[in-house]
Amino acid sequence: MPSFPDPKRTVAELKELRALTGTEDGAQRVAFTKTWQEARAWLKEKMAELPAEEHADAAGNLWFTLKGESEKALIIGGHMDSVPNGGWLDGSLNVMCGVEILRRIHEEFGGNPPVTVRLVDWADEEGARFGKSLFGSAAFSGNLDMEEARVLKDRDGVPLPDALGECGIDFENVKQARVEQKNAAAYLELHIEQGPVLLDLDLPLAVVQGTYGVERHEIIFHGQAAHSGSTPMNRRKDALLPAARMAAEIYKITGRHGGVCTIGSCKTEPGIVTSVVEGCRITLDQRHLDPVALASMLDDAKVASERFASEANVTVRWEKILGIAPQPFHAKLMDFCTEAILQVSGEAPHLPSGPLHDAAEVSAAGIPTVMMFVQSLHGISHNKIEDTREEHIELSVLAMDHLARRTMEWIQENEKP
Amino acid sequence: MPSFPDPKRTVAELKELRALTGTEDGAQRVAFTKTWQEARAWLKEKMAELPAEEHADAAGNLWFTLKGESEKALIIGGHMDSVPNGGWLDGSLNVMCGVEILRRIHEEFGGNPPVTVRLVDWADEEGARFGKSLFGSAAFSGNLDMEEARVLKDRDGVPLPDALGECGIDFENVKQARVEQKNAAAYLELHIEQGPVLLDLDLPLAVVQGTYGVERHEIIFHGQAAHSGSTPMNRRKDALLPAARMAAEIYKITGRHGGVCTIGSCKTEPGIVTSVVEGCRITLDQRHLDPVALASMLDDAKVASERFASEANVTVRWEKILGIAPQPFHAKLMDFCTEAILQVSGEAPHLPSGPLHDAAEVSAAGIPTVMMFVQSLHGISHNKIEDTREEHIELSVLAMDHLARRTMEWIQENEKP
Repeated sequence: MPSFPDPKRTVAELKELRALTGTEDGAQRVAFTKTWQEARAWLKEKMAELPAEEHADAAGNLWFTLKGESEKALIIGGHMDSVPNGGWLDGSLNVMCGVEILRRIHEEFGGNPPVTVRLVDWADEEGARFGKSLFGSAAFSGNLDMEEARVLKDRDGVPLPDALGECGIDFENVKQARVEQKNAAAYLELHIEQGPVLLDLDLPLAVVQGTYGVERHEIIFHGQAAHSGSTPMNRRKDALLPAARMAAEIYKITGRHGGVCTIGSCKTEPGIVTSVVEGCRITLDQRHLDPVALASMLDDAKVASERFASEANVTVRWEKILGIAPQPFHAKLMDFCTEAILQVSGEAPHLPSGPLHDAAEVSAAGIPTVMMFVQSLHGISHNKIEDTREEHIELSVLAMDHLARRTMEWIQENEKP
Repeated sequence: MPSFPDPKRTVAELKELRALTGTEDGAQRVAFTKTWQEARAWLKEKMAELPAEEHADAAGNLWFTLKGESEKALIIGGHMDSVPNGGWLDGSLNVMCGVEILRRIHEEFGGNPPVTVRLVDWADEEGARFGKSLFGSAAFSGNLDMEEARVLKDRDGVPLPDALGECGIDFENVKQARVEQKNAAAYLELHIEQGPVLLDLDLPLAVVQGTYGVERHEIIFHGQAAHSGSTPMNRRKDALLPAARMAAEIYKITGRHGGVCTIGSCKTEPGIVTSVVEGCRITLDQRHLDPVALASMLDDAKVASERFASEANVTVRWEKILGIAPQPFHAKLMDFCTEAILQVSGEAPHLPSGPLHDAAEVSAAGIPTVMMFVQSLHGISHNKIEDTREEHIELSVLAMDHLARRTMEWIQENEKP
């Protein structure tokens, strides 16, 4: 006989966590800090009511396992860590929704579910302290760049390996977290949207199609400094001019290809009021779910930058900052996610995820993965004003529970010879 | 019987000064420093060969006076001070040309010229140490803003009044330099162009029409920070977009009105690669010789900024940094300057001066004023690579001497009842 989750309990527990680990400036659960460890201790207390095996893996990811008749495992994940002065739901909603679903499954199957069910609290999703996000899930997937991570330092100069050591984690062994992939059959993650799309649609929930691929570059234009008073306009090599034209161009590029493009930073040299700009550096962040479209966006931007530079009689060069492949989610799990949302809401829109999530690393490890988004108020995250209506939180727990139920059935079906 | 100046001596003396007060990084004659005082001591030695009365006025301007039959005085001016790592000719050419002309006049009139002739070395034209240019000449004209100047500090926190005190100048009395205006009948100043126009024209010398008026503002656009991945393009309030459109717009504005406009600095907030720009600050420097055209340029820029802001759904506000009225030079002296140049060169183009000069302050005091420009190589100044061909330096001394001769005659003509 089916049991049901108690979504109001999830809301109450999230408020309890906020009171315990937040200040008037927002959530303070920065990874590898005392407050983060307090949040995890509180989570362990909550989970102690269930007969779940608990352990931290080699990368500091915290696992709770309800053993089932099959070793094949459904994994539900989230992260307790936040940015400094962060929102109350980013990451923690995912975990506490998972707690409630494990409670329901334990009750429904009298301690003997047909497949194994695991909850994971990923370590340092945000990368707030060392500037490297998805630390724990990248160790799990095996994609963590050890050379890069080894030399990361926080703003006080503390190296990442030392900070990990203080939490009992041996940096050189973090990739042993890959053993947790064993028997993983599906991965589910709920997250606040962190954008304005569901708010605009006036809908509570969406199926996430995957995480955007990212092309991130710095574009450097170089002209000639010259006195603002004595240099005629037609004699200038003004490096700001072509850089500035890129600001409008990126809107044309997304108009053609979809996706998103952002110029987040513009720096001028010498940057004084009485000189024509000699050097102008802009950053360009381009994202798309389709790798072919992403490559076209990049090509278009390069061609435009060269044309603008040539027309302004300045030079241009590009420096790559980051490249991430698009990570499309599992088609069958997206179908299940659609069905689950339609059980609690009239529509189930499909959205790409602009921000990266731990789910992208799990998917990259070859484990069937899907995410669900719940509406964000203000379209804002990483800020104390991040919020979601309580009725939407409750709907998200119910829909995720439907999704978990259907996914467990699917895992069982796949077990049959 | 007419005597003639020796322009090759001027070139030799400028090289002597460069060896004495320059390093491999350029001229180091920053006002109120030891090197500047050494340069002035060297100038006094040069002038000691003439029977000129010498004194420093209340603002530290150094005056040399050859008394004539009439007390009405022709003044020739320049400045020995330079920016740090400056050019060898900026300011010092003007002074040393004046020295040579005084020598010629002394010789020609056997110590009894028909009108008084004065050479002035203005104090701190560059404003390199305290960020306030034209100090000495503004004290002379009476336009120096005492409230503003009193609180100026150098990068070590030394207040301007203290630095002046160390050079024997009482800050509170600097405007007593106005007594030097007495009997001033005309002011002449030679200067390197500091721009590329004469180089483009392949001509050595130009008549300066006046100094540009300046409208200098900061323009502040304010939108909304938002995540680069999760915020659809049509939901953005991107403060960079309207700011960037101004970069091309200023070229359209000068196309309509003439003059020059420069956006020298662009700053983005939060200025990170993963955020839509919330705040964007640009500086706008606009210059024109005609006050009506200057006002129209400012109006056009304001209207454009408001339209671009509105179209991008962001706000805009303006903050004034500086306003300087155009300072047109004296029509009759411009005629004399034209004639003088035509005696040594095939053409005498008329140019506005983009940079300010001490001559603007003298002209603002109501004294008939004109300047002559000599070609700059590279169109570059305030840099050790600033340079002018020696043959052009020599031509400039000859032309200035012609101009001084004609101006003295004009002063005599004006004396007649």
